[in-house]
Amino acid sequence: MAIFAYKVVFFDLDHTLVDTRKQYDLGLARTNHILYPNGVPASWQEHFMHHHEQLWELYDRRVLTMQQLRRERFILAWRDFGEERSVAEADHFQDVYLEGFQETLFPYPGTLAMVKVLAQQYRLAIVTNGAPDLQEAKLQAAGLSPYFPRESLIVSEQVGEAKPHPSVYAAACAAMGVQAGQAVMVGDNLRADVEGAKAFGLDAIWYVPDAGMAATAHATVGRMPLTQPQQVLQELNRMEQARG
Amino acid sequence: MAIFAYKVVFFDLDHTLVDTRKQYDLGLARTNHILYPNGVPASWQEHFMHHHEQLWELYDRRVLTMQQLRRERFILAWRDFGEERSVAEADHFQDVYLEGFQETLFPYPGTLAMVKVLAQQYRLAIVTNGAPDLQEAKLQAAGLSPYFPRESLIVSEQVGEAKPHPSVYAAACAAMGVQAGQAVMVGDNLRADVEGAKAFGLDAIWYVPDAGMAATAHATVGRMPLTQPQQVLQELNRMEQARG
Repeated sequence: MAIFAYKVVFFDLDHTLVDTRKQYDLGLARTNHILYPNGVPASWQEHFMHHHEQLWELYDRRVLTMQQLRRERFILAWRDFGEERSVAEADHFQDVYLEGFQETLFPYPGTLAMVKVLAQQYRLAIVTNGAPDLQEAKLQAAGLSPYFPRESLIVSEQVGEAKPHPSVYAAACAAMGVQAGQAVMVGDNLRADVEGAKAFGLDAIWYVPDAGMAATAHATVGRMPLTQPQQVLQELNRMEQARG
Repeated sequence: MAIFAYKVVFFDLDHTLVDTRKQYDLGLARTNHILYPNGVPASWQEHFMHHHEQLWELYDRRVLTMQQLRRERFILAWRDFGEERSVAEADHFQDVYLEGFQETLFPYPGTLAMVKVLAQQYRLAIVTNGAPDLQEAKLQAAGLSPYFPRESLIVSEQVGEAKPHPSVYAAACAAMGVQAGQAVMVGDNLRADVEGAKAFGLDAIWYVPDAGMAATAHATVGRMPLTQPQQVLQELNRMEQARG
Protein backbone atom coordinates (compact mmCIF):
# COMPACT_ATOMS: atom_id res chain seq x y z
CA MET A 1 0.00 0.00 0.00
CA ALA A 2 1.31 3.37 -1.02
CA ILE A 3 2.14 5.89 1.65
CA PHE A 4 0.71 9.31 1.01
CA ALA A 5 2.27 12.53 2.24
CA TYR A 6 -1.16 14.07 2.62
CA LYS A 7 -3.88 12.66 4.83
CA VAL A 8 -6.67 15.08 4.07
CA VAL A 9 -7.83 16.94 0.98
CA PHE A 10 -9.84 20.07 1.74
CA PHE A 11 -12.17 21.41 -0.92
CA ASP A 12 -13.88 24.70 -1.31
CA LEU A 13 -17.53 24.10 -2.27
CA ASP A 14 -19.06 26.95 -4.32
CA HIS A 15 -17.56 27.38 -7.79
CA THR A 16 -15.19 24.49 -7.01
CA LEU A 17 -17.32 21.37 -6.57
CA VAL A 18 -20.79 22.75 -7.27
CA ASP A 19 -21.83 25.07 -10.10
CA THR A 20 -23.05 27.96 -8.01
CA ARG A 21 -23.25 30.28 -11.00
CA LYS A 22 -25.56 27.95 -12.87
CA GLN A 23 -27.58 27.51 -9.69
CA TYR A 24 -28.16 31.25 -9.47
CA ASP A 25 -29.08 31.43 -13.15
CA LEU A 26 -31.60 28.62 -12.90
CA GLY A 27 -32.83 29.42 -9.41
CA LEU A 28 -33.44 33.12 -10.02
CA ALA A 29 -35.14 32.45 -13.36
CA ARG A 30 -37.39 29.89 -11.68
CA THR A 31 -38.25 32.23 -8.83
CA ASN A 32 -39.01 35.17 -11.11
CA HIS A 33 -41.13 32.93 -13.30
CA ILE A 34 -43.23 31.97 -10.28
CA LEU A 35 -43.48 35.39 -8.65
CA TYR A 36 -43.46 37.77 -11.62
CA PRO A 37 -45.33 36.09 -14.46
CA ASN A 38 -45.32 39.38 -16.41
CA GLY A 39 -41.55 39.28 -16.39
CA VAL A 40 -38.77 41.33 -14.84
CA PRO A 41 -36.41 43.78 -16.59
CA ALA A 42 -34.05 41.98 -18.97
CA SER A 43 -30.92 42.73 -16.97
CA TRP A 44 -32.49 42.25 -13.54
CA GLN A 45 -30.58 39.05 -12.76
CA GLU A 46 -27.35 40.75 -13.73
CA HIS A 47 -28.07 43.55 -11.28
CA PHE A 48 -29.04 41.04 -8.60
CA MET A 49 -25.74 39.19 -9.04
CA HIS A 50 -23.75 42.43 -9.11
CA HIS A 51 -25.18 43.46 -5.76
CA HIS A 52 -24.86 39.92 -4.44
CA GLU A 53 -21.14 39.93 -5.19
CA GLN A 54 -20.55 43.38 -3.75
CA LEU A 55 -22.52 42.59 -0.61
CA TRP A 56 -20.88 39.20 -0.22
CA GLU A 57 -17.60 40.93 0.60
CA LEU A 58 -19.38 42.67 3.45
CA TYR A 59 -20.92 39.38 4.56
CA ASP A 60 -17.49 37.73 4.48
CA ARG A 61 -16.22 40.39 6.83
CA ARG A 62 -19.31 40.05 9.03
CA VAL A 63 -20.41 43.61 8.35
CA LEU A 64 -23.71 42.22 7.07
CA THR A 65 -25.57 39.15 8.24
CA MET A 66 -26.73 36.52 5.75
CA GLN A 67 -30.29 37.75 6.18
CA GLN A 68 -29.27 41.33 5.42
CA LEU A 69 -27.30 40.19 2.37
CA ARG A 70 -30.31 38.31 1.03
CA ARG A 71 -32.67 41.21 1.56
CA GLU A 72 -30.40 43.91 0.25
CA ARG A 73 -29.36 42.21 -3.00
CA PHE A 74 -33.05 41.98 -3.88
CA ILE A 75 -33.97 45.51 -2.80
CA LEU A 76 -30.91 47.11 -4.43
CA ALA A 77 -31.50 45.24 -7.70
CA TRP A 78 -35.05 46.55 -7.93
CA ARG A 79 -33.96 50.02 -6.91
CA ASP A 80 -31.66 50.05 -9.94
CA PHE A 81 -34.87 49.96 -11.97
CA GLY A 82 -36.54 52.67 -9.92
CA GLU A 83 -38.74 50.34 -7.92
CA GLU A 84 -38.90 50.27 -4.15
CA ARG A 85 -39.55 46.76 -2.85
CA SER A 86 -40.25 45.95 0.75
CA VAL A 87 -38.30 43.76 3.14
CA ALA A 88 -41.35 41.48 3.26
CA GLU A 89 -41.22 41.01 -0.52
CA ALA A 90 -37.48 40.37 -0.35
CA ASP A 91 -38.04 37.69 2.28
CA HIS A 92 -40.80 36.07 0.24
CA PHE A 93 -38.56 36.05 -2.84
CA GLN A 94 -35.83 34.37 -0.81
CA ASP A 95 -38.25 31.74 0.50
CA VAL A 96 -39.42 30.83 -3.00
CA TYR A 97 -35.83 30.85 -4.23
CA LEU A 98 -34.79 28.42 -1.49
CA GLU A 99 -37.68 26.08 -2.28
CA GLY A 100 -36.19 25.50 -5.72
CA PHE A 101 -32.70 25.00 -4.48
CA GLN A 102 -32.42 21.22 -4.69
CA GLU A 103 -33.51 21.08 -8.31
CA THR A 104 -31.22 23.83 -9.55
CA LEU A 105 -27.85 22.82 -8.10
CA PHE A 106 -25.41 20.55 -9.94
CA PRO A 107 -21.80 19.49 -9.52
CA TYR A 108 -19.39 20.36 -12.32
CA PRO A 109 -18.87 17.54 -14.86
CA GLY A 110 -16.35 15.00 -13.60
CA THR A 111 -16.57 16.21 -10.03
CA LEU A 112 -18.13 13.06 -8.61
CA ALA A 113 -15.58 10.85 -10.39
CA MET A 114 -12.70 12.95 -9.02
CA VAL A 115 -14.06 12.88 -5.50
CA LYS A 116 -14.65 9.14 -5.67
CA VAL A 117 -11.04 8.50 -6.65
CA LEU A 118 -9.71 10.81 -3.97
CA ALA A 119 -11.90 9.26 -1.29
CA GLN A 120 -10.04 5.98 -1.79
CA GLN A 121 -6.75 7.60 -0.80
CA TYR A 122 -7.60 10.51 1.46
CA ARG A 123 -10.07 11.77 3.97
CA LEU A 124 -12.03 14.59 2.37
CA ALA A 125 -13.46 17.74 3.87
CA ILE A 126 -15.08 21.01 2.85
CA VAL A 127 -13.85 24.46 3.90
CA THR A 128 -16.44 26.97 2.76
CA ASN A 129 -17.35 30.62 3.26
CA GLY A 130 -20.82 29.95 1.86
CA ALA A 131 -24.24 30.43 3.39
CA PRO A 132 -24.24 28.21 6.49
CA ASP A 133 -27.86 27.12 6.17
CA LEU A 134 -27.33 25.82 2.64
CA GLN A 135 -24.02 24.00 2.56
CA GLU A 136 -25.35 20.63 3.67
CA ALA A 137 -28.24 20.94 1.23
CA LYS A 138 -25.76 21.70 -1.53
CA LEU A 139 -23.70 18.60 -0.81
CA GLN A 140 -26.86 16.53 -0.85
CA ALA A 141 -28.29 18.10 -4.03
CA ALA A 142 -25.01 17.57 -5.83
CA GLY A 143 -24.69 13.93 -4.73
CA LEU A 144 -21.59 14.71 -2.71
CA SER A 145 -22.90 13.77 0.75
CA PRO A 146 -21.50 10.21 0.73
CA TYR A 147 -17.98 11.59 0.42
CA PHE A 148 -18.32 14.43 2.91
CA PRO A 149 -19.82 13.37 6.25
CA ARG A 150 -21.27 16.15 8.35
CA GLU A 151 -18.24 16.40 10.63
CA SER A 152 -16.02 17.15 7.63
CA LEU A 153 -17.97 20.29 6.69
CA ILE A 154 -16.21 23.40 8.03
CA VAL A 155 -18.31 26.52 7.46
CA SER A 156 -16.45 29.73 8.10
CA GLU A 157 -19.40 31.52 9.70
CA GLN A 158 -19.31 28.95 12.45
CA VAL A 159 -15.61 29.68 12.93
CA GLY A 160 -16.25 33.41 13.19
CA GLU A 161 -13.94 34.54 10.40
CA ALA A 162 -13.93 33.84 6.66
CA LYS A 163 -11.17 32.44 4.46
CA PRO A 164 -8.43 33.58 3.94
CA HIS A 165 -8.29 34.21 7.70
CA PRO A 166 -5.96 31.58 9.18
CA SER A 167 -8.40 30.68 11.95
CA VAL A 168 -10.63 29.01 9.37
CA TYR A 169 -7.81 26.75 8.23
CA ALA A 170 -6.80 26.14 11.83
CA ALA A 171 -10.36 25.04 12.62
CA ALA A 172 -10.41 22.82 9.53
CA CYS A 173 -7.18 21.05 10.46
CA ALA A 174 -8.34 20.66 14.05
CA ALA A 175 -11.66 19.21 12.92
CA MET A 176 -9.86 16.63 10.80
CA GLY A 177 -7.11 15.98 13.34
CA VAL A 178 -4.19 16.86 11.06
CA GLN A 179 -1.25 19.24 11.00
CA ALA A 180 -1.06 21.86 8.23
CA GLY A 181 1.68 19.88 6.47
CA GLN A 182 -0.58 16.86 6.16
CA ALA A 183 -3.29 18.46 4.04
CA VAL A 184 -3.94 20.09 0.69
CA MET A 185 -6.54 22.74 -0.07
CA VAL A 186 -8.29 22.82 -3.47
CA GLY A 187 -10.38 25.83 -4.45
CA ASP A 188 -11.25 28.43 -7.06
CA ASN A 189 -10.53 31.61 -5.12
CA LEU A 190 -6.88 32.57 -5.42
CA ARG A 191 -6.88 34.77 -2.37
CA ALA A 192 -9.11 32.75 -0.04
CA ASP A 193 -8.36 29.18 -1.10
CA VAL A 194 -4.76 29.32 -2.33
CA GLU A 195 -2.98 32.25 -0.73
CA GLY A 196 -4.92 31.89 2.50
CA ALA A 197 -4.21 28.17 2.74
CA LYS A 198 -0.53 28.64 1.96
CA ALA A 199 -0.20 31.40 4.53
CA PHE A 200 -1.42 28.90 7.11
CA GLY A 201 1.06 26.26 5.93
CA LEU A 202 -1.15 24.08 3.76
CA ASP A 203 -0.26 23.15 0.23
CA ALA A 204 -2.85 24.34 -2.24
CA ILE A 205 -4.18 23.72 -5.73
CA TRP A 206 -5.85 26.48 -7.71
CA TYR A 207 -8.73 24.89 -9.57
CA VAL A 208 -11.45 26.82 -11.43
CA PRO A 209 -13.81 24.43 -13.28
CA ASP A 210 -16.02 27.25 -14.61
CA ALA A 211 -14.46 28.13 -17.97
CA GLY A 212 -15.59 31.74 -17.90
CA MET A 213 -14.28 32.31 -14.41
CA ALA A 214 -11.00 30.64 -15.32
CA ALA A 215 -10.59 32.94 -18.33
CA THR A 216 -11.33 35.98 -16.20
CA ALA A 217 -8.88 34.83 -13.54
CA HIS A 218 -6.22 34.29 -16.20
CA ALA A 219 -6.79 37.75 -17.67
CA THR A 220 -6.73 39.34 -14.22
CA VAL A 221 -3.73 37.74 -12.55
CA GLY A 222 -1.82 36.43 -15.57
CA ARG A 223 -1.83 32.85 -14.33
CA MET A 224 -4.05 30.03 -15.53
CA PRO A 225 -5.73 27.82 -12.93
CA LEU A 226 -6.37 24.13 -13.41
CA THR A 227 -9.80 23.65 -14.98
CA GLN A 228 -10.31 19.88 -15.25
CA PRO A 229 -10.93 17.40 -12.42
CA GLN A 230 -8.36 15.09 -14.03
CA GLN A 231 -5.75 17.83 -13.75
CA VAL A 232 -6.38 18.05 -10.02
CA LEU A 233 -5.72 14.33 -9.64
CA GLN A 234 -2.53 14.63 -11.70
CA GLU A 235 -1.32 17.66 -9.80
CA LEU A 236 -1.94 15.99 -6.47
CA ASN A 237 -0.03 12.95 -7.68
CA ARG A 238 2.86 15.17 -8.76
CA MET A 239 2.87 16.91 -5.38
CA GLU A 240 2.93 13.55 -3.57
CA GLN A 241 5.92 12.45 -5.61
CA ALA A 242 7.74 15.72 -5.02
CA ARG A 243 7.37 15.15 -1.28
CA GLY A 244 8.10 11.45 -1.40
CA MET B 1 -46.23 93.50 4.14
CA ALA B 2 -46.89 90.69 1.74
CA ILE B 3 -48.58 87.58 3.02
CA PHE B 4 -46.85 84.38 2.05
CA ALA B 5 -48.59 81.07 1.64
CA TYR B 6 -45.49 79.27 2.88
CA LYS B 7 -43.92 79.89 6.25
CA VAL B 8 -40.91 77.60 5.97
CA VAL B 9 -38.57 76.59 3.18
CA PHE B 10 -36.83 73.28 3.78
CA PHE B 11 -33.60 72.59 1.95
CA ASP B 12 -31.70 69.43 1.38
CA LEU B 13 -28.00 70.07 2.08
CA ASP B 14 -25.65 67.79 0.09
CA HIS B 15 -25.69 68.40 -3.66
CA THR B 16 -28.33 71.10 -3.10
CA LEU B 17 -26.69 73.86 -1.06
CA VAL B 18 -23.15 72.52 -0.73
CA ASP B 19 -20.99 71.01 -3.45
CA THR B 20 -20.51 67.58 -1.94
CA ARG B 21 -19.05 66.15 -5.13
CA LYS B 22 -16.32 68.76 -5.28
CA GLN B 23 -15.70 68.19 -1.58
CA TYR B 24 -15.05 64.50 -2.18
CA ASP B 25 -12.79 65.28 -5.14
CA LEU B 26 -10.71 67.76 -3.19
CA GLY B 27 -10.86 65.98 0.14
CA LEU B 28 -9.88 62.55 -1.16
CA ALA B 29 -7.07 64.01 -3.30
CA ARG B 30 -5.77 65.89 -0.26
CA THR B 31 -5.93 62.81 1.96
CA ASN B 32 -4.21 60.56 -0.55
CA HIS B 33 -1.54 63.19 -1.10
CA ILE B 34 -0.79 63.17 2.63
CA LEU B 35 -1.01 59.43 3.25
CA TYR B 36 0.25 57.94 -0.01
CA PRO B 37 2.97 60.22 -1.38
CA ASN B 38 3.85 57.59 -3.97
CA GLY B 39 0.36 57.87 -5.38
CA VAL B 40 -2.69 55.64 -5.61
CA PRO B 41 -4.07 53.88 -8.72
CA ALA B 42 -5.44 56.40 -11.23
CA SER B 43 -9.06 55.31 -10.85
CA TRP B 44 -8.93 54.74 -7.09
CA GLN B 45 -11.18 57.72 -6.26
CA GLU B 46 -13.70 56.53 -8.81
CA HIS B 47 -13.80 53.14 -7.12
CA PHE B 48 -14.08 54.78 -3.71
CA MET B 49 -17.04 56.87 -4.86
CA HIS B 50 -18.69 53.87 -6.53
CA HIS B 51 -18.58 51.91 -3.29
CA HIS B 52 -19.57 54.97 -1.31
CA GLU B 53 -22.71 55.38 -3.39
CA GLN B 54 -23.61 51.70 -3.25
CA LEU B 55 -23.04 51.51 0.49
CA TRP B 56 -24.88 54.76 1.10
CA GLU B 57 -28.13 53.05 0.13
CA LEU B 58 -27.48 50.53 2.89
CA TYR B 59 -26.67 53.32 5.32
CA ASP B 60 -29.87 55.13 4.37
CA ARG B 61 -31.80 52.01 5.26
CA ARG B 62 -29.82 51.59 8.48
CA VAL B 63 -28.35 48.27 7.37
CA LEU B 64 -24.89 49.77 7.84
CA THR B 65 -23.77 52.33 10.40
CA MET B 66 -21.90 55.44 9.32
CA GLN B 67 -18.71 53.96 10.74
CA GLN B 68 -19.17 50.76 8.72
CA LEU B 69 -19.88 52.77 5.57
CA ARG B 70 -16.69 54.77 6.03
CA ARG B 71 -14.57 51.72 6.64
CA GLU B 72 -16.02 49.59 3.88
CA ARG B 73 -15.84 52.15 1.08
CA PHE B 74 -12.11 52.40 1.74
CA ILE B 75 -11.49 48.67 2.11
CA LEU B 76 -13.59 47.72 -0.92
CA ALA B 77 -11.93 50.37 -3.11
CA TRP B 78 -8.49 48.97 -2.30
CA ARG B 79 -9.69 45.42 -2.74
CA ASP B 80 -10.67 46.32 -6.31
CA PHE B 81 -6.93 46.78 -6.87
CA GLY B 82 -6.03 43.54 -5.14
CA GLU B 83 -4.88 45.12 -1.90
CA GLU B 84 -6.17 44.18 1.52
CA ARG B 85 -6.27 47.16 3.83
CA SER B 86 -7.02 46.95 7.52
CA VAL B 87 -9.84 48.51 9.48
CA ALA B 88 -7.20 50.51 11.35
CA GLU B 89 -5.90 51.98 8.08
CA ALA B 90 -9.45 52.76 6.99
CA ASP B 91 -10.06 54.60 10.24
CA HIS B 92 -6.84 56.55 9.92
CA PHE B 93 -7.73 57.51 6.35
CA GLN B 94 -11.11 58.74 7.56
CA ASP B 95 -9.50 60.79 10.34
CA VAL B 96 -7.15 62.53 7.94
CA TYR B 97 -9.99 63.04 5.48
CA LEU B 98 -12.12 64.70 8.16
CA GLU B 99 -9.28 66.99 9.20
CA GLY B 100 -9.38 68.57 5.74
CA PHE B 101 -13.11 68.91 5.65
CA GLN B 102 -13.48 72.63 6.38
CA GLU B 103 -11.09 73.67 3.65
CA THR B 104 -12.60 71.49 0.92
CA LEU B 105 -16.32 72.27 1.21
CA PHE B 106 -17.97 75.09 -0.74
CA PRO B 107 -21.53 76.21 -1.43
CA TYR B 108 -22.63 76.27 -5.07
CA PRO B 109 -22.30 79.70 -6.73
CA GLY B 110 -25.24 81.93 -5.90
CA THR B 111 -26.34 79.80 -2.98
CA LEU B 112 -25.60 82.36 -0.29
CA ALA B 113 -27.41 85.10 -2.22
CA MET B 114 -30.46 82.88 -2.68
CA VAL B 115 -30.56 81.91 0.95
CA LYS B 116 -30.15 85.52 2.06
CA VAL B 117 -33.14 86.61 -0.02
CA LEU B 118 -35.27 83.74 1.22
CA ALA B 119 -34.36 84.37 4.84
CA GLN B 120 -36.05 87.77 4.59
CA GLN B 121 -39.38 86.10 3.75
CA TYR B 122 -39.30 82.64 5.27
CA ARG B 123 -37.93 80.64 8.10
CA LEU B 124 -35.35 78.26 6.67
CA ALA B 125 -34.44 74.72 7.69
CA ILE B 126 -32.37 71.77 6.51
CA VAL B 127 -33.74 68.24 6.03
CA THR B 128 -30.77 65.98 5.34
CA ASN B 129 -29.92 62.30 5.14
CA GLY B 130 -26.24 63.12 5.40
CA ALA B 131 -23.62 62.06 7.93
CA PRO B 132 -24.93 63.35 11.27
CA ASP B 133 -21.51 64.28 12.66
CA LEU B 134 -20.74 66.51 9.68
CA GLN B 135 -23.85 68.48 8.85
CA GLU B 136 -23.22 71.35 11.25
CA ALA B 137 -19.62 71.54 10.12
CA LYS B 138 -20.81 71.70 6.51
CA LEU B 139 -23.15 74.59 7.22
CA GLN B 140 -20.33 76.39 8.94
CA ALA B 141 -17.70 75.68 6.27
CA ALA B 142 -20.10 76.87 3.57
CA GLY B 143 -20.99 80.09 5.41
CA LEU B 144 -24.59 78.96 5.81
CA SER B 145 -24.74 78.83 9.62
CA PRO B 146 -26.21 82.34 10.01
CA TYR B 147 -29.28 81.32 8.04
CA PHE B 148 -29.77 77.90 9.59
CA PRO B 149 -29.71 77.93 13.40
CA ARG B 150 -29.02 74.61 15.07
CA GLU B 151 -32.69 73.90 15.84
CA SER B 152 -33.54 74.12 12.15
CA LEU B 153 -31.23 71.27 11.20
CA ILE B 154 -33.19 68.01 10.87
CA VAL B 155 -30.86 65.05 10.33
CA SER B 156 -32.65 61.88 9.31
CA GLU B 157 -30.45 59.56 11.36
CA GLN B 158 -31.73 61.31 14.46
CA VAL B 159 -35.29 60.68 13.27
CA GLY B 160 -34.60 56.99 12.74
CA GLU B 161 -35.59 56.79 9.07
CA ALA B 162 -34.21 58.47 5.96
CA LYS B 163 -35.97 60.56 3.33
CA PRO B 164 -38.25 59.77 1.51
CA HIS B 165 -39.79 58.16 4.62
CA PRO B 166 -42.65 60.42 5.74
CA SER B 167 -41.51 60.38 9.38
CA VAL B 168 -38.55 62.57 8.39
CA TYR B 169 -40.85 65.22 6.93
CA ALA B 170 -43.19 64.87 9.89
CA ALA B 171 -40.27 65.51 12.24
CA ALA B 172 -39.15 68.48 10.13
CA CYS B 173 -42.59 70.12 10.20
CA ALA B 174 -42.91 69.44 13.92
CA ALA B 175 -39.49 70.97 14.59
CA MET B 176 -40.47 74.11 12.71
CA GLY B 177 -44.03 74.19 14.08
CA VAL B 178 -45.78 74.14 10.71
CA GLN B 179 -48.35 72.02 8.88
CA ALA B 180 -47.33 70.29 5.67
CA GLY B 181 -49.28 72.84 3.60
CA GLN B 182 -47.23 75.68 5.02
CA ALA B 183 -43.85 74.56 3.75
CA VAL B 184 -41.87 73.86 0.58
CA MET B 185 -39.04 71.39 0.19
CA VAL B 186 -36.13 72.14 -2.16
CA GLY B 187 -33.67 69.39 -3.06
CA ASP B 188 -31.73 67.56 -5.73
CA ASN B 189 -32.96 64.01 -5.14
CA LEU B 190 -36.15 63.38 -7.07
CA ARG B 191 -37.18 60.42 -4.96
CA ALA B 192 -36.15 61.62 -1.52
CA ASP B 193 -36.63 65.38 -1.77
CA VAL B 194 -39.45 65.77 -4.28
CA GLU B 195 -41.56 62.62 -4.33
CA GLY B 196 -41.02 61.98 -0.63
CA ALA B 197 -41.97 65.54 0.30
CA LYS B 198 -45.06 65.50 -1.93
CA ALA B 199 -46.18 62.17 -0.54
CA PHE B 200 -46.19 63.80 2.88
CA GLY B 201 -48.16 66.80 1.62
CA LEU B 202 -45.41 69.36 1.15
CA ASP B 203 -44.93 71.27 -2.07
CA ALA B 204 -41.52 70.64 -3.59
CA ILE B 205 -39.01 72.12 -5.99
CA TRP B 206 -36.55 69.91 -7.83
CA TYR B 207 -33.28 71.79 -7.95
CA VAL B 208 -29.95 70.29 -9.08
CA PRO B 209 -27.22 72.93 -9.16
CA ASP B 210 -24.49 70.47 -10.25
CA ALA B 211 -24.60 70.65 -14.06
CA GLY B 212 -23.38 67.09 -14.55
CA MET B 213 -25.89 65.64 -12.11
CA ALA B 214 -28.67 67.70 -13.73
CA ALA B 215 -27.77 66.34 -17.17
CA THR B 216 -27.73 62.78 -15.83
CA ALA B 217 -31.07 63.30 -14.12
CA HIS B 218 -32.53 64.69 -17.33
CA ALA B 219 -31.25 61.75 -19.34
CA THR B 220 -32.55 59.26 -16.76
CA VAL B 221 -36.03 60.52 -15.97
CA GLY B 222 -36.71 62.71 -19.02
CA ARG B 223 -37.35 65.82 -16.95
CA MET B 224 -35.03 68.74 -16.40
CA PRO B 225 -34.60 70.04 -12.86
CA LEU B 226 -34.01 73.69 -12.03
CA THR B 227 -30.28 74.37 -11.97
CA GLN B 228 -29.92 78.05 -11.00
CA PRO B 229 -30.55 79.62 -7.58
CA GLN B 230 -32.42 82.44 -9.35
CA GLN B 231 -34.80 79.87 -10.86
CA VAL B 232 -35.62 78.60 -7.37
CA LEU B 233 -36.58 82.12 -6.28
CA GLN B 234 -38.72 82.59 -9.39
CA GLU B 235 -40.41 79.22 -9.01
CA LEU B 236 -41.20 79.87 -5.37
CA ASN B 237 -42.65 83.24 -6.34
CA ARG B 238 -44.77 81.56 -9.00
CA MET B 239 -46.01 78.99 -6.50
CA GLU B 240 -46.91 81.70 -4.01
CA GLN B 241 -48.95 83.50 -6.65
CA ALA B 242 -50.69 80.29 -7.70
CA ARG B 243 -51.79 79.80 -4.10
CA GLY B 244 -52.61 83.44 -3.47
